[in-house]
Amino acid sequence: MATLSLKGIFPPLPTSFDRDENLVADRIRFNIEKLSAYNLAGFLILGSNGEQVMLSTTERIEAVAAAREALPEGRLLLAGTGCPSTRETISLTRAVAGEGAHAVLVINPSYYRGNMNHDELVRHYHDVADASPVPVLVYNMPANTGIDMTARMIIAMAEHPNIIGLKESGGNVAKMGEILGNVRPGFQVLAGGAGFLLPALSVGAAGGILAAANIAPGHCLDIFNAFAAGDIARARELQQRIIPLNAAVTARWGAPALKAAMDELGLYGGHVRRPLLPLDDKTTKELLDLMRSDGLDLYRQIK
Amino acid sequence: MATLSLKGIFPPLPTSFDRDENLVADRIRFNIEKLSAYNLAGFLILGSNGEQVMLSTTERIEAVAAAREALPEGRLLLAGTGCPSTRETISLTRAVAGEGAHAVLVINPSYYRGNMNHDELVRHYHDVADASPVPVLVYNMPANTGIDMTARMIIAMAEHPNIIGLKESGGNVAKMGEILGNVRPGFQVLAGGAGFLLPALSVGAAGGILAAANIAPGHCLDIFNAFAAGDIARARELQQRIIPLNAAVTARWGAPALKAAMDELGLYGGHVRRPLLPLDDKTTKELLDLMRSDGLDLYRQIK
Amino acid sequence: MATLSLKGIFPPLPTSFDRDENLVADRIRFNIEKLSAYNLAGFLILGSNGEQVMLSTTERIEAVAAAREALPEGRLLLAGTGCPSTRETISLTRAVAGEGAHAVLVINPSYYRGNMNHDELVRHYHDVADASPVPVLVYNMPANTGIDMTARMIIAMAEHPNIIGLKESGGNVAKMGEILGNVRPGFQVLAGGAGFLLPALSVGAAGGILAAANIAPGHCLDIFNAFAAGDIARARELQQRIIPLNAAVTARWGAPALKAAMDELGLYGGHVRRPLLPLDDKTTKELLDLMRSDGLDLYRQIK
Amino acid sequence: MATLSLKGIFPPLPTSFDRDENLVADRIRFNIEKLSAYNLAGFLILGSNGEQVMLSTTERIEAVAAAREALPEGRLLLAGTGCPSTRETISLTRAVAGEGAHAVLVINPSYYRGNMNHDELVRHYHDVADASPVPVLVYNMPANTGIDMTARMIIAMAEHPNIIGLKESGGNVAKMGEILGNVRPGFQVLAGGAGFLLPALSVGAAGGILAAANIAPGHCLDIFNAFAAGDIARARELQQRIIPLNAAVTARWGAPALKAAMDELGLYGGHVRRPLLPLDDKTTKELLDLMRSDGLDLYRQIK
Repeated sequence: MATLSLKGIFPPLPTSFDRDENLVADRIRFNIEKLSAYNLAGFLILGSNGEQVMLSTTERIEAVAAAREALPEGRLLLAGTGCPSTRETISLTRAVAGEGAHAVLVINPSYYRGNMNHDELVRHYHDVADASPVPVLVYNMPANTGIDMTARMIIAMAEHPNIIGLKESGGNVAKMGEILGNVRPGFQVLAGGAGFLLPALSVGAAGGILAAANIAPGHCLDIFNAFAAGDIARARELQQRIIPLNAAVTARWGAPALKAAMDELGLYGGHVRRPLLPLDDKTTKELLDLMRSDGLDLYRQIK
Repeated sequence: MATLSLKGIFPPLPTSFDRDENLVADRIRFNIEKLSAYNLAGFLILGSNGEQVMLSTTERIEAVAAAREALPEGRLLLAGTGCPSTRETISLTRAVAGEGAHAVLVINPSYYRGNMNHDELVRHYHDVADASPVPVLVYNMPANTGIDMTARMIIAMAEHPNIIGLKESGGNVAKMGEILGNVRPGFQVLAGGAGFLLPALSVGAAGGILAAANIAPGHCLDIFNAFAAGDIARARELQQRIIPLNAAVTARWGAPALKAAMDELGLYGGHVRRPLLPLDDKTTKELLDLMRSDGLDLYRQIK
Repeated sequence: MATLSLKGIFPPLPTSFDRDENLVADRIRFNIEKLSAYNLAGFLILGSNGEQVMLSTTERIEAVAAAREALPEGRLLLAGTGCPSTRETISLTRAVAGEGAHAVLVINPSYYRGNMNHDELVRHYHDVADASPVPVLVYNMPANTGIDMTARMIIAMAEHPNIIGLKESGGNVAKMGEILGNVRPGFQVLAGGAGFLLPALSVGAAGGILAAANIAPGHCLDIFNAFAAGDIARARELQQRIIPLNAAVTARWGAPALKAAMDELGLYGGHVRRPLLPLDDKTTKELLDLMRSDGLDLYRQIK
Repeated sequence: MATLSLKGIFPPLPTSFDRDENLVADRIRFNIEKLSAYNLAGFLILGSNGEQVMLSTTERIEAVAAAREALPEGRLLLAGTGCPSTRETISLTRAVAGEGAHAVLVINPSYYRGNMNHDELVRHYHDVADASPVPVLVYNMPANTGIDMTARMIIAMAEHPNIIGLKESGGNVAKMGEILGNVRPGFQVLAGGAGFLLPALSVGAAGGILAAANIAPGHCLDIFNAFAAGDIARARELQQRIIPLNAAVTARWGAPALKAAMDELGLYGGHVRRPLLPLDDKTTKELLDLMRSDGLDLYRQIK
């Protein structure tokens, strides 16, 4: 039975590109070094925020290697390895494990959504978990895949000893609660968005993989720590305050906004790959206003 | 500025029909009397569980009058009065206020969903609130209406002094948090489903209007009280345990299942109105198995 | 076996309101008289465009009576009678048949959409057809109901001898073809939108109930007649030309736009009922530009 | 201004795998040779039915090369080259053009669907068209991508001289008509499914890329030819007959069903790649019953 504590907060790092949309691995290292000043549990590389689907296999491996180099002792490196086919997912999983990733996060295949029923998806995850040298986390992200995996599916997947957890980005906390009530002790659920971190913790989540943790790591940690200390009132106040900024860098404007915000804070955001386009001027201004006005003290956060 | 404390748990009562699908107001009184043995904050009549859309105006008023008669001192009576037009909503609101309802719960019109944009919906709620002699709660129920009102809409609606709260049945707790962070103090959010009661409380909900509170009132109150006492671990355990039964009487099988469960527990469930059909034998058996096996002690709950 | 030829074009009349949102039955008569200059097969009263869901029972009956009075010899009057419950649908069906409607058009109940499965919906239509003194048409309108009834459902409904046809507003012509290939000869499908009239005719539709036929009756009839005469090239050219205007008065801006367009053409459009709001000035201008510029010769159409 | 007549019927070939899920290019050639006995306009390789998203770049190029070798004189080879990023789409487009594909079919990127607005998508297609040595077709496939590109988007894309057409798989024939009424003469729309071939032709489609043309090429050609000859009644009868089988190998059971049907008919279907799973026995039996009973004479079709 695989085990690895996922307790805490993980930023899902964007992948760093230059103006020609080429990977600049050195900027991934830079971001990890800067963010490691915070007491984060680790990092996710190659998540949705990492534009994984737009990277070549070679670039994926290079990004993981760069992240691993910069990773401080005692932090975890998770890598996103979900691909459209089972065989490619297995192959990438083995490659990133070879580069030192501690666990992999596998988004479900979704192109043939009409066929992605219970049997196909459970089989896929079990096949990947059989072949993976490191523990596997299931990744449910309906906003991007168009598929919202059910509690019943996740519970069936969790029977595999090498599947240790779930990143749930759909925000359905009732489902999180149902899953946690029906899996083996030790199976860990991570919130996939800062907008529902506190409610997820309340039903038993171990922590979160949060886009907002790239730009407001201290704030996200404060929510986590206030909850852990039993100070629900403070956790709630902090939770409410992060929601608009979190929405801005996720559902509302996505990766281009996250990168713009990182640039503004002295991290490396850089360019997106097309078909993504950079924020237009009007939206950039709205984003900066949001960053400046919401009482998050972002400008003192990144050390 | 209207005010009324909505703190606590409210069951949304089904409307009682006999085998000919006729209203039997006396059974509404019976259910309220039985359930009033619990420390519930009050009752909702004419909600989604109350098959409101299938009642004539006369029946709606009769149902409210029956509920009011049976209501013990110190409990609140909320009545669902949302209709397809603004004028009919106002008319019904005034009628039920005349029968003694303490507040009304107004689901949004949804038939012309292509036209139900921000301006139409905010105007509708403000017009109703202007005309209502009692405080108004907004009711968001995307599973039935096909419209998920946004935080921005709700925040605009909440500017009206006679709109005192929201029943949110969509389960989006991040949205609840965003709303609570942007409305006047005193605006109250109620969870619309027992599946997410605890996470809703964690972000600041005042309580819940919960179908499951018709059949597991003690269990729902225990979650509420454990949270209020700061015992998150116990609240979480109780929360996880109620999820499958709650799903059974809401999203999965709906009103026919709720009525069957009430019959089983010595309350009056009775018949549904067509096009709803009673549960088939196989589903009834599944429901009863769920009621018996989930450690909810339902059979000792209804006194 | 009920029978009634539905071949041809039917406008779904809006219901006429004055500035206080009160029904003005006399304006319904006016519109029918004006539009009867065209060779239309008949009229639908109380459809989606007729704001049926916002009318009281009394108003519904009054509207049908007014339409019947104005109806010229040889034209058909269809009336929309779908209500949330089976019992109310039956009651309204009998009432409008008593007022002289030749057939009823029954939209499916949709509020309890989680329960509206095959058995519930087929039973509902069969119950209504059993009780109806006049033939019944099924009405599928997913944009408003959120439910897209399947070919399998419609085929099962069509086994009832008193169910003579279908108005299909979803635009899925493959489904229309599948239905027509699997029902008794004589079951008639009507296109529910002018945007897909020609393709619907190509797979065997008998005609259409078309919002656009209220403002461009001659144009709609020209498409129908060109197709009947085997002149596909001309039908296609006319079909392409009507699409933007049709979209404007249906999916894009709905009933408020239809009423504004009718006012512009010398018919009675009048006011909408709230929560619907009249078009704002900018949209009205866009609508009028569309009406003037699309080569439809609308201003010579209404005689 | 690029030009290429797309008039006629194209089967979207599945990609041939052996039991170990490895590509067997030789079986692609075999299928093309068999199907070339019919008067098809050409073939699509690497479409949705071709499991393109599950192939490596090397395999994609190998599949196109194999198809090109087997292609008879006078037939067209279209290749699907849409990838998640603009840069990879361009790179694959150039590679398959180098292998002799006559045009490319580009599905829209969809993973970052929240960002895939008008500007991003139009820019993507224009960038690809700028870089492509061969003409480009836009491919709209909402069932797989979760994005239904609007008429306005397609019309803007069609302004590029190297974008010559659209494969529309959503079945919205009103949209097809609107597009054809607003693009330059010569822009060609192809139906993306046999279920709506006739209605698409009626609004001006040039032909179709039809999964069903892999197993019922004669039947699909008969519909096309009957329509061309003005025999709508015959086209309609043939159209109705193909619908259930077409649904079986597309929306209902997908690629596994198409491959099973091809095996049954003496073509090479072979294995699917996981996460797709082969049809279970019960479904296979249903499929074969459908093939045998629907009067399509499939067993005489493949020569």
